[in-house]
Amino acid sequence: MPLKIIKKSTKSQARVGKLRIAHGVIDTPFFMPIATKATVKGIGSAEVADALGSQIILSNTYHLLLEPGMDILKKTGGLHDFMNWPRAILTDSGGFQVYSLGNLRKISEQGVKFKNPKNGMSYELTPENVIQYQSIIGSDIVMVLDECTEYPCSKKRARESMEMSLRWAKRCKDAYEALKKKNTVLGRRARLQLLFGIVQGSIYQDLRVECARRLVEMGFDGYALGGVSVGETAHHSYEVLDWTFDNLPYDKPRYVLGMGTPQDIIEGVKRGVDMFDCVIPTREGRHGKLFAWQGGRKVSETFQRFPKPYAFYKTINITNAKFKKDFKPINVNSKLPELREYSKAYLHHLFKINEPLGQRLASLNNLEFYLGLMEEIRVAITKDKI
Amino acid sequence: MPLKIIKKSTKSQARVGKLRIAHGVIDTPFFMPIATKATVKGIGSAEVADALGSQIILSNTYHLLLEPGMDILKKTGGLHDFMNWPRAILTDSGGFQVYSLGNLRKISEQGVKFKNPKNGMSYELTPENVIQYQSIIGSDIVMVLDECTEYPCSKKRARESMEMSLRWAKRCKDAYEALKKKNTVLGRRARLQLLFGIVQGSIYQDLRVECARRLVEMGFDGYALGGVSVGETAHHSYEVLDWTFDNLPYDKPRYVLGMGTPQDIIEGVKRGVDMFDCVIPTREGRHGKLFAWQGGRKVSETFQRFPKPYAFYKTINITNAKFKKDFKPINVNSKLPELREYSKAYLHHLFKINEPLGQRLASLNNLEFYLGLMEEIRVAITKDKI
Repeated sequence: MPLKIIKKSTKSQARVGKLRIAHGVIDTPFFMPIATKATVKGIGSAEVADALGSQIILSNTYHLLLEPGMDILKKTGGLHDFMNWPRAILTDSGGFQVYSLGNLRKISEQGVKFKNPKNGMSYELTPENVIQYQSIIGSDIVMVLDECTEYPCSKKRARESMEMSLRWAKRCKDAYEALKKKNTVLGRRARLQLLFGIVQGSIYQDLRVECARRLVEMGFDGYALGGVSVGETAHHSYEVLDWTFDNLPYDKPRYVLGMGTPQDIIEGVKRGVDMFDCVIPTREGRHGKLFAWQGGRKVSETFQRFPKPYAFYKTINITNAKFKKDFKPINVNSKLPELREYSKAYLHHLFKINEPLGQRLASLNNLEFYLGLMEEIRVAITKDKI
Repeated sequence: MPLKIIKKSTKSQARVGKLRIAHGVIDTPFFMPIATKATVKGIGSAEVADALGSQIILSNTYHLLLEPGMDILKKTGGLHDFMNWPRAILTDSGGFQVYSLGNLRKISEQGVKFKNPKNGMSYELTPENVIQYQSIIGSDIVMVLDECTEYPCSKKRARESMEMSLRWAKRCKDAYEALKKKNTVLGRRARLQLLFGIVQGSIYQDLRVECARRLVEMGFDGYALGGVSVGETAHHSYEVLDWTFDNLPYDKPRYVLGMGTPQDIIEGVKRGVDMFDCVIPTREGRHGKLFAWQGGRKVSETFQRFPKPYAFYKTINITNAKFKKDFKPINVNSKLPELREYSKAYLHHLFKINEPLGQRLASLNNLEFYLGLMEEIRVAITKDKI
């Protein structure tokens, strides 16, 4: 079994484990910095690995198909080599990105045809080729192709979409099993990869339950939740987690796609999530929003607060005029020298003159906060505090 | 004497020396990376100091006056502290920047009044306040306020402008001497600073000669050449250097403002220049132009080539399609791990998707090339090869 659960909380569904994948063993629950287009925006791979200490990043089949393209990744032996990233990679299949293309995409039983919004070139994602593509990419963890429904979404539409996603999941699984049997580079690679199914069903409990059960029948290495954090309330998202996880095997890794405020992460962990990704730390960092611990780096005392707001962290907007003369360090407790040595006033200045170094420092600050949050959460679970 | 000349070439006017200033001793001739707005674009101060090994950077009074403003720099104790830069800083007074503001500025005998192009706020630079400002900034090397003439420029206009620049130079010198006598933070700081005069006179030999002689009579710690590389041919620029340096004291540092193709640097060094700055490595890097050694890192064999093109270096445009599949390192011989480990194909990809990491890597590559060029030049002079 790739996931070894080391400690299950007695207070909640939270668990700490070790996930064994092609590029090492990763402590769960974990957070994946986003490198959709083969780069964590503004930050080098060595910094993500060494300075930030991230064990895994997330990339995206759809984006990599457009740039640099599969021929480039094939030639260079995969994404690890291309972006010089030594650790694990999870790739989404791109279903969500294609879904957001609107008129440029056409979904049929066969798969999704779409045009590159930049140059009009035509592409297709099918359950079969996303398996092939993710093997070329060399992802450690591979996602099936799914359709992500909009929110709100009628039950009829949610059911039809879910049924197609299930048929696609089966075709992905078949393609994956066929590839694993091949004595080729991609075949050998596939044998080291994990394939995750994705549970859909919008906010309808019976659909979520049915979808989870039918995916479990097919048998995947792990299970992801799709179609959450697409506009519904946090309360709704957390309910979907409860419904679904009751119907997933205890010992398989669980991943919620794209859900990731600090509150979401804690509420997810309490419900049994092992894996998170989210654009928030990097995207909001680029807009000058910085995450910081409130009253020191500890979260355990405040774990049981939802729906009350969490008090263990705060966000500041560094572009605010009050930071113009704040000569205190960006984060006096940071592991990263630049975050200890540069002042908030300097970061304010960099944002004011629109210098990319500012976005870089803010992204580093936020990723450090997120990765630190996951460390604290793992300790808290181990101590039975969550 | 702040400049100690260690070796004078027998082949040319080139010389190797040690310049002693407030933040250490710097080997001459040297090149200053540009940090006009208190940041070397996209690159942290610690990287410029430690990874690139630069001993000095250039910043700009005009830009710092607008952002972050003198009150901020005063509060934090100067630019070194503000941008966390441990080594030397030279600041230009901002005459050149104000000159390029066109209708937004008004030059009179008193000084230059101008409006901030961003918000319309009014400012003034005078010979007296640029001395004050550069002391607040804490520059190691301070420039007088001058007027930079456009090119081409009539002799009458060049003469009038030069006369005013000379009057301004005298007022700067007087303000500097007065400040040095004060028992204040700025006074103590001024006593550690060097003040440079700036030779103007467009492309007119008699004006350049006269301007140099009259500045030398006033007595500055070093001499800069302004109004070169403003549109005239390289041949013209080099002539101006010859005329001027014949009339400057041998043992004072010589600086040419803003002139800096690799050819310019070598031709300047041959004529006795000790100090260079130029936006080329960072600005062209941000547009995807990369400097590289041709046939290994050595320049001495090709020093005598002008006006034939120099063959010791080349530039490549990384956005060119031929780099799409070039998986060789950006620079296999780089001291910087990221330039050895990332491929040209990856850098091409980053530029194609407009990721700031690309601009950052290209700037690092070019600054390393420029700083390496200066090292090679110093060695070549020591060996009497230039």
